[in-house]
Amino acid sequence: MRRALAASDVVHGTTSPNPSVGAVVLDRDGRIVGVGATAPPGGAHAEVAALADAGDRAAGGTVVVTLEPCNHHGRTPPCVDALLAAGVVRVHAAVADPTPRAGGGLARLRAAGVEVTLGTLAEEVARGPLRGWLHRQHTGRPHVTWKVATTLDGRVAAADGTSRWITGETARAEVHDLRRRMDAIVAGTGTVLADDPALTARRPDGTLLGHQPLRVVVGHRDIPPGARLTDTDCAGTVHLRTRDPDEVLDDLARRGAVDVLLEGGPTLAGAFVAAGAVDRVLVHLAPALLGAGPHALGEAGVGTIADIVRLHVDEVRRAGADVVLDARPVTQDGPETRHGSDTQHGSDTQHGSDTQHGPGTPVG
Amino acid sequence: MRRALAASDVVHGTTSPNPSVGAVVLDRDGRIVGVGATAPPGGAHAEVAALADAGDRAAGGTVVVTLEPCNHHGRTPPCVDALLAAGVVRVHAAVADPTPRAGGGLARLRAAGVEVTLGTLAEEVARGPLRGWLHRQHTGRPHVTWKVATTLDGRVAAADGTSRWITGETARAEVHDLRRRMDAIVAGTGTVLADDPALTARRPDGTLLGHQPLRVVVGHRDIPPGARLTDTDCAGTVHLRTRDPDEVLDDLARRGAVDVLLEGGPTLAGAFVAAGAVDRVLVHLAPALLGAGPHALGEAGVGTIADIVRLHVDEVRRAGADVVLDARPVTQDGPETRHGSDTQHGSDTQHGSDTQHGPGTPVG
Ligand SMILES: NC(=O)c1ccc[n+]([C@@H]2O[C@H](COP(=O)([O-])OP(=O)(O)OC[C@H]3O[C@@H](n4cnc5c(N)ncnc54)[C@H](OP(=O)(O)O)[C@@H]3O)[C@@H](O)[C@H]2O)c1
Ligand SMILES: NC(=O)c1ccc[n+]([C@@H]2O[C@H](COP(=O)([O-])OP(=O)(O)OC[C@H]3O[C@@H](n4cnc5c(N)ncnc54)[C@H](OP(=O)(O)O)[C@@H]3O)[C@@H](O)[C@H]2O)c1
Repeated sequence: MRRALAASDVVHGTTSPNPSVGAVVLDRDGRIVGVGATAPPGGAHAEVAALADAGDRAAGGTVVVTLEPCNHHGRTPPCVDALLAAGVVRVHAAVADPTPRAGGGLARLRAAGVEVTLGTLAEEVARGPLRGWLHRQHTGRPHVTWKVATTLDGRVAAADGTSRWITGETARAEVHDLRRRMDAIVAGTGTVLADDPALTARRPDGTLLGHQPLRVVVGHRDIPPGARLTDTDCAGTVHLRTRDPDEVLDDLARRGAVDVLLEGGPTLAGAFVAAGAVDRVLVHLAPALLGAGPHALGEAGVGTIADIVRLHVDEVRRAGADVVLDARPVTQDGPETRHGSDTQHGSDTQHGSDTQHGPGTPVG
Repeated sequence: MRRALAASDVVHGTTSPNPSVGAVVLDRDGRIVGVGATAPPGGAHAEVAALADAGDRAAGGTVVVTLEPCNHHGRTPPCVDALLAAGVVRVHAAVADPTPRAGGGLARLRAAGVEVTLGTLAEEVARGPLRGWLHRQHTGRPHVTWKVATTLDGRVAAADGTSRWITGETARAEVHDLRRRMDAIVAGTGTVLADDPALTARRPDGTLLGHQPLRVVVGHRDIPPGARLTDTDCAGTVHLRTRDPDEVLDDLARRGAVDVLLEGGPTLAGAFVAAGAVDRVLVHLAPALLGAGPHALGEAGVGTIADIVRLHVDEVRRAGADVVLDARPVTQDGPETRHGSDTQHGSDTQHGSDTQHGPGTPVG
């Protein structure tokens, strides 16, 4: 499953509105004979790609896939048919497909005599490449990650507006790797006017990465002619003359966006937080102090401590000299529901290399 | 050494202006037969207390001590004399005594035929109970820890001034445990007027811990009559009518303070940062957002990004739902010098239970 997850991670950002799925085929002796991931819309699903890679060797073998195989005719035929046709005898999926039309794939496979399990590495998959897509299936909205680079005292620039660089190279490289997984990057007119950012996904040497998200500017003011993000060589740009986060998300949903990165600034981020439109908060914390300058977050509708917006920290880690906090808003029933909740760590069954993170639970 | 360190930790806060030292005596078979720690000023040093605990069993044995044994007549006779009189044949010390008068203890022991090493667990000791004292020996000033409880967006209270509670119980309990190690707690008049804090070291049930630091209020305005920190049952209070951090530290140095806790607020903390008078930054970071309200740090003399105050993060850890960052300002030659720099992790010699953190280096 780790191999399948890695395959899906590579294509994350290029498959929307489809999920970025990864699949691995093992032959009857347990050797990896095929690997595949979702192609861009209209292309093959991961299982089909992996089966094609494996050819005859899939017969009698096992397919490990990050999402329950689909069971409907969309732009492509159902993956379940392809799995049955290939003579696969075992299917391990990480997370269930929540879509009413596509779901039920595992049940159909089981009915056809295939041994199936669900839940292997589910949490990791649901927090990783499938997080945005699962969110969109459940809510109808794109998944919004607010990313901010701040000092320990919550400043995103110095008093004179200078902000290059607050965080170090490692953290900045991570941002570019995050951008390439996104369908859209959103910034307010204030940030565009202050910093003239390119909002592209680049390698450390400055060259552009393969996939570029749509650049979205929000606010009534004009984008100045010659602004770096109007450079259309590399990526498209949209200017949404609104101040309403819901309008922004509706527009992006219509464009098929699954993963949206909100990169600021503080005013726009405050509006998104106030609207309950932030699903993940990724803070790159520089161990540094400024004591003045613009804040990480502007007015977010919180007047008193009882209304504080609490987050659940999924991960804290160091990135070079910086510290990264990966968090999500706490909803009434605890942190935003994790999908693929079948992943329990208590089962005795172990599936090869997946044992580190909780084996799959048999479906039945 | 770990046992000696633990013994010194218990008395940390009660020994100033003396260092809080811990010592353990092993008999000739390596069994622990005595443990001691520095008594309040005028009382026994750690080695002497541990030797008294061991009695005859120290002869032919080993003494493990967190600080090089002293070699001078102060209020008590030199510990070196006591070690020689007890017939100890081996002494392991963590850090060297930098004081010109008291130092040289290990050299004298060696000259008398005692086997000595220096450096066992040195880094841990120098970052722990001896940090403030070593700092004071090197600089003549008390060691200042600025502690702040802030949201991820750098706010220490909501827009209406409410701030109870930003951080959770675990982090708050840690603050009380920190306070009991301190000689003084410093706050500005602004914090006293806004929050009416008691600034005492308490147990989770609200009862007072044994040692209470001096409470210091800084600023020109009067402390309102009836303020909680004027309650003299438990701890003393001083009002320093100044706005100059150097004056504050000079005054506290004269009072024998070694460890000072700066608990805010933002204005006073900014003044201390600007004066270069903060030696350690302890941030209790609540995974929460406010978007408005007072900042963690006020004006600190930084106008542009090039003048940002960079810190080195010694530790990041979770405390309940919160995240704690323990950092120190980066000086020109890297983070503030670590003392007891003899502790290298490369030596082959191993000393019983101390092997986890780099064994002592023989002195010779
Ligand atoms: N370190 C970081 O991670 C980071 C990231 C981004 C920005 N920054 C810093 O942030 C600063 C810019 O701050 P900013 O707050 O001006 O940037 P901003 O949030 O990007 O832009 C604010 C503008 O967005 C428009 N807007 C859109 N929705 C709005 C709403 N619901 N309510 C109010 N206005 C809305 C308004 O402009 P219209 O009048 O055009 O409608 C508003 O003036 C710069 O100093 C930049 O360096 C730092
Ligand atoms: N979450 C936390 O960890 C935490 C901790 C403490 C405070 N707080 C919050 O901080 C807020 C209070 O902020 P604050 O900035 O007023 O508190 P403050 O820093 O405690 O007090 C500021 C006052 O200190 C005096 N002062 C001393 N040295 C100064 C200097 N060098 N420059 C200027 N003034 C100096 C001035 O008063 P005079 O006019 O009397 O000289 C000044 O008004 C409250 O909302 C409180 O809840 C939060």
